[in-house]
Amino acid sequence: MLKPLADRVIVKMLEKEETTKSGIILSSKSEEKSQIAQVLKVGNGIGEDGKKVDMCVKEGDKVVLNQYAGTTIKYEGEELIIVKYSDILAVVE
Amino acid sequence: MLKPLADRVIVKMLEKEETTKSGIILSSKSEEKSQIAQVLKVGNGIGEDGKKVDMCVKEGDKVVLNQYAGTTIKYEGEELIIVKYSDILAVVE
Amino acid sequence: MLKPLADRVIVKMLEKEETTKSGIILSSKSEEKSQIAQVLKVGNGIGEDGKKVDMCVKEGDKVVLNQYAGTTIKYEGEELIIVKYSDILAVVE
Amino acid sequence: MLKPLADRVIVKMLEKEETTKSGIILSSKSEEKSQIAQVLKVGNGIGEDGKKVDMCVKEGDKVVLNQYAGTTIKYEGEELIIVKYSDILAVVE
Amino acid sequence: MLKPLADRVIVKMLEKEETTKSGIILSSKSEEKSQIAQVLKVGNGIGEDGKKVDMCVKEGDKVVLNQYAGTTIKYEGEELIIVKYSDILAVVE
Amino acid sequence: MLKPLADRVIVKMLEKEETTKSGIILSSKSEEKSQIAQVLKVGNGIGEDGKKVDMCVKEGDKVVLNQYAGTTIKYEGEELIIVKYSDILAVVE
Amino acid sequence: MLKPLADRVIVKMLEKEETTKSGIILSSKSEEKSQIAQVLKVGNGIGEDGKKVDMCVKEGDKVVLNQYAGTTIKYEGEELIIVKYSDILAVVE
Repeated sequence: MLKPLADRVIVKMLEKEETTKSGIILSSKSEEKSQIAQVLKVGNGIGEDGKKVDMCVKEGDKVVLNQYAGTTIKYEGEELIIVKYSDILAVVE
Repeated sequence: MLKPLADRVIVKMLEKEETTKSGIILSSKSEEKSQIAQVLKVGNGIGEDGKKVDMCVKEGDKVVLNQYAGTTIKYEGEELIIVKYSDILAVVE
Repeated sequence: MLKPLADRVIVKMLEKEETTKSGIILSSKSEEKSQIAQVLKVGNGIGEDGKKVDMCVKEGDKVVLNQYAGTTIKYEGEELIIVKYSDILAVVE
Repeated sequence: MLKPLADRVIVKMLEKEETTKSGIILSSKSEEKSQIAQVLKVGNGIGEDGKKVDMCVKEGDKVVLNQYAGTTIKYEGEELIIVKYSDILAVVE
Repeated sequence: MLKPLADRVIVKMLEKEETTKSGIILSSKSEEKSQIAQVLKVGNGIGEDGKKVDMCVKEGDKVVLNQYAGTTIKYEGEELIIVKYSDILAVVE
Repeated sequence: MLKPLADRVIVKMLEKEETTKSGIILSSKSEEKSQIAQVLKVGNGIGEDGKKVDMCVKEGDKVVLNQYAGTTIKYEGEELIIVKYSDILAVVE
Repeated sequence: MLKPLADRVIVKMLEKEETTKSGIILSSKSEEKSQIAQVLKVGNGIGEDGKKVDMCVKEGDKVVLNQYAGTTIKYEGEELIIVKYSDILAVVE
């Protein structure tokens, strides 16, 4: 598996119309790319300046990403995105 | 529901000519997009550098947004905007 | 009324040739937009980093604005500008 | 009169070939705009971050400005420039 | 050998389809440049401002780089990349 | 004379092939503008943030300037350059 | 000789295929400019903000430079480069 460094988080985009655990239908504008992703791995939160960033997300959380944020990589057949914590805008409760 | 992270706030744009609780008619230039929105959810105010931002808005407040601020998402059929607290210019009293 | 947040100030542009309280004729270059405005409301001065900005203007003050500063909104029929305190260059005494 | 805010200074450009108090002829390149101005009013020196800037110029000083610095306004028939103290490069002694 | 200065790391890009020690096939999008590299040398972590950066990678680690990060050099026949630690996004575990 | 403010230095470009006190011929690329100048006046070194910059140059020093640095002014018939101390790269010993 | 100021270093580019003291052939991509240089002089390391930068290079060191870094000058017939310490990526050991 991949371990994100510092204040980074590894996420996987969710398919549209995918049902959340709580039964909520998450759907973004049909003509736009979905911005909802699931958290796979969370970094240790120690930022570049040595300060601890409080990472308020955990594995499995569904989150809304800043559009165009992060770096997309293909790893073991899956397309993953590595984002900075600050590019996570909100958590689906 | 969505929980905004850090110093972010989730708002919903108000229709023009919508009457506020206090009976005030809020209307922006008819040829421009309304910049008045209603606060739905407020983050915990802990910014990216770990410092606490004093979030002087609360659920239900009507606020004036910085134009073009924030990220628009569609969530459960509603169009929401996630903005930084610093993109909220004023509160309707 | 609108309450400006943080280190913001709400002002209203003055018409050219408008007489100030003290009888001074304020006029800017006739071919340019007037840059003199009247202060309507002053924020609490607590900036985004939590530090207190000393807001040396008060309601009724006539001020010179940085050109193109601020966000123009129409509120209850009046065109107002919400500016950062740092975009106020000088006060008419 | 106008009172500059914070670390700002109000100056007035000097005509070329104008004689200084000390009898020195100040002249800039004839094909360029003069960059020498006279200080009319000095702000209190408290910058945007609340720190005191040591303003080493006083009313009447002749100063060299950073080219294109400041905001030009017309006030009571006179063309004035409001500059940041940091845009004053040197003082004529 | 080359010793990277400060918070820099020297890495070597891995060929696609290269097998990791743990038997994992690392492969990035076939139409894009691989972003997985192996760490050869790690700087002492003292950044430009004198603060110690906690360098959570070590010689031999396989890492995901920020695309386009770093400076490519040819040294003793090998193509190496010198990157800032902050351009390493994740470590393959 | 002109007194530079803050961390600024007033210099005068040297003609090419000019002999230094120590008898060294200073010459820059014949097809480029000389980058060697002589220090005329040094500011008090108190920067914009109130911190003291250690100005390691003195009147008469020959210095190498950052190309395109500073503001050129004509003062009493002489072409002078006002540069920030940080635009002085080296001193000729 | 030239004395670099602050956190600057004076270097001289090495010819390709030049043999290092240790017998290593340093060669960069034949179609690109060599990025390996020799250190001639090191500044005192006191940066613009008054903080001491730990300069981990010394006279005679062979170093890898950030491409396009620094200012090239011709001094006493030799082409020298004045770079910031932070533009030195690595040292040849």
